[in-house]
Amino acid sequence: MSYPVRTEVCYNTSHPSRGRALLINYEHDRPGSVKDTKDVYHVLEKLQFAVTVATNLKERELMDLLEKESKEDHTNSDCFVMVVMAHGTAPDMIKIMDGYFAMDRLWKDFVGNLCSSLKGKPKLFFIQSCRGNLEEKIQRKDAVPIIEKEENFLVSMHADLLVMYASYYKHAAYRDPTEGAWFIQALCNVLSGDIRQTDLLSLLTDVSYDVMYKYANRFAENGIYNLQIPMITSMLTKKFYFVEKYVPAVKGSKDTRYNVLAGK
Amino acid sequence: MSYPVRTEVCYNTSHPSRGRALLINYEHDRPGSVKDTKDVYHVLEKLQFAVTVATNLKERELMDLLEKESKEDHTNSDCFVMVVMAHGTAPDMIKIMDGYFAMDRLWKDFVGNLCSSLKGKPKLFFIQSCRGNLEEKIQRKDAVPIIEKEENFLVSMHADLLVMYASYYKHAAYRDPTEGAWFIQALCNVLSGDIRQTDLLSLLTDVSYDVMYKYANRFAENGIYNLQIPMITSMLTKKFYFVEKYVPAVKGSKDTRYNVLAGK
Repeated sequence: MSYPVRTEVCYNTSHPSRGRALLINYEHDRPGSVKDTKDVYHVLEKLQFAVTVATNLKERELMDLLEKESKEDHTNSDCFVMVVMAHGTAPDMIKIMDGYFAMDRLWKDFVGNLCSSLKGKPKLFFIQSCRGNLEEKIQRKDAVPIIEKEENFLVSMHADLLVMYASYYKHAAYRDPTEGAWFIQALCNVLSGDIRQTDLLSLLTDVSYDVMYKYANRFAENGIYNLQIPMITSMLTKKFYFVEKYVPAVKGSKDTRYNVLAGK
Repeated sequence: MSYPVRTEVCYNTSHPSRGRALLINYEHDRPGSVKDTKDVYHVLEKLQFAVTVATNLKERELMDLLEKESKEDHTNSDCFVMVVMAHGTAPDMIKIMDGYFAMDRLWKDFVGNLCSSLKGKPKLFFIQSCRGNLEEKIQRKDAVPIIEKEENFLVSMHADLLVMYASYYKHAAYRDPTEGAWFIQALCNVLSGDIRQTDLLSLLTDVSYDVMYKYANRFAENGIYNLQIPMITSMLTKKFYFVEKYVPAVKGSKDTRYNVLAGK
């Protein structure tokens, strides 16, 4: 069993067209959203997308639009973009003209093998909406209204957090009894390389590539493949590099409560 | 009201230490996990992390370890890493020695302002476990066991998908009635710049930065700030650049069923 040598680290952007973009906007009771729509439209057009705008659709119209869009021929496109702007509520529902609509229904027709002309191409979804009504409100103790230095800034609870899962939500992750888990092995492989010049999200994207192409497509039992794609959830606000250190690293904890690896 | 000029696009990696790393491994009924632990350990050590390994902990021991770790002084560290390897089940629970443990409890003590010496620093969590028991199994119709070309590869349903939310799970997203939504405005701003040389995840990370630092810290009513951090969920497997096209873009759909923006 072999796997392809990775000749390109980037998605193919040599197609004739950038791709199609769908802007779905709900304006009712959402002042500012008309400006948002115009701004997004202009940016997408500047980026050479073929943009369609749909406003205040009902469920049936929205379903028709998604179906129509997913059946378009994206063969000549680099990618596909959808921007949705609406009120939202938990559990990840957007408010439409005649009810609510599950967010994950938005990309359902476009993923995997369902939209073959987008297979292997980036499908980018940008959701402008609430995902519930939890709010973080903080009163500054020092009552300084003007904040000049970054270290004085307030940070959201989850800012600077990155979580990468071995598998997509609700899906299984695979482990070889002798070789180890696909995700962990891919992670180790990537991070063992010459990575000083490469930022973290790029590295983790490489990990996803390896799980998908070097592992999931490599092992089959009776012609049946178990697919697995990792999931990066990033709330980072800056790039991160593993810059070389020129001071000795602090050694691992010797706390005997925990089973520090033998031989270290 | 002002906000800081962004002088650095990368996290500060000039601290004396790389940082602490915690490896939490559950070995029972998980062949291959000992090798995984060793491999992760060596990679983290090579990356100059101070690594602690904890194996087969019970709930009380795990809680103690998390508390102890979050109370460490990370002042001299660039970042913090936790790698957890366990069986898992929906809804995002890992199996521990005496029951189940919620995944999001793992990072609870480390985020936001709760661990002040990690504030503003990357906190990276890698979860090797199932998140449920859904599996994708595909039988190849063409019965070709050896796959040489990338286009013949099987892809997971969610591979190459990227979803960026305006706000963290269950949290509110803000919109200025005249200026537009923070997220959409930041997105437009970033994508309007000179971005041909910058990959997508880096651009979106810039969007998160802007929402957090240029918007959430800028607007206050009576000293009360509404915080907001976007969430990038990436199943991409390659980098993506908006490479310049030298062919005319396809124009937007003229479908009259949808409200194509006036003036275009």
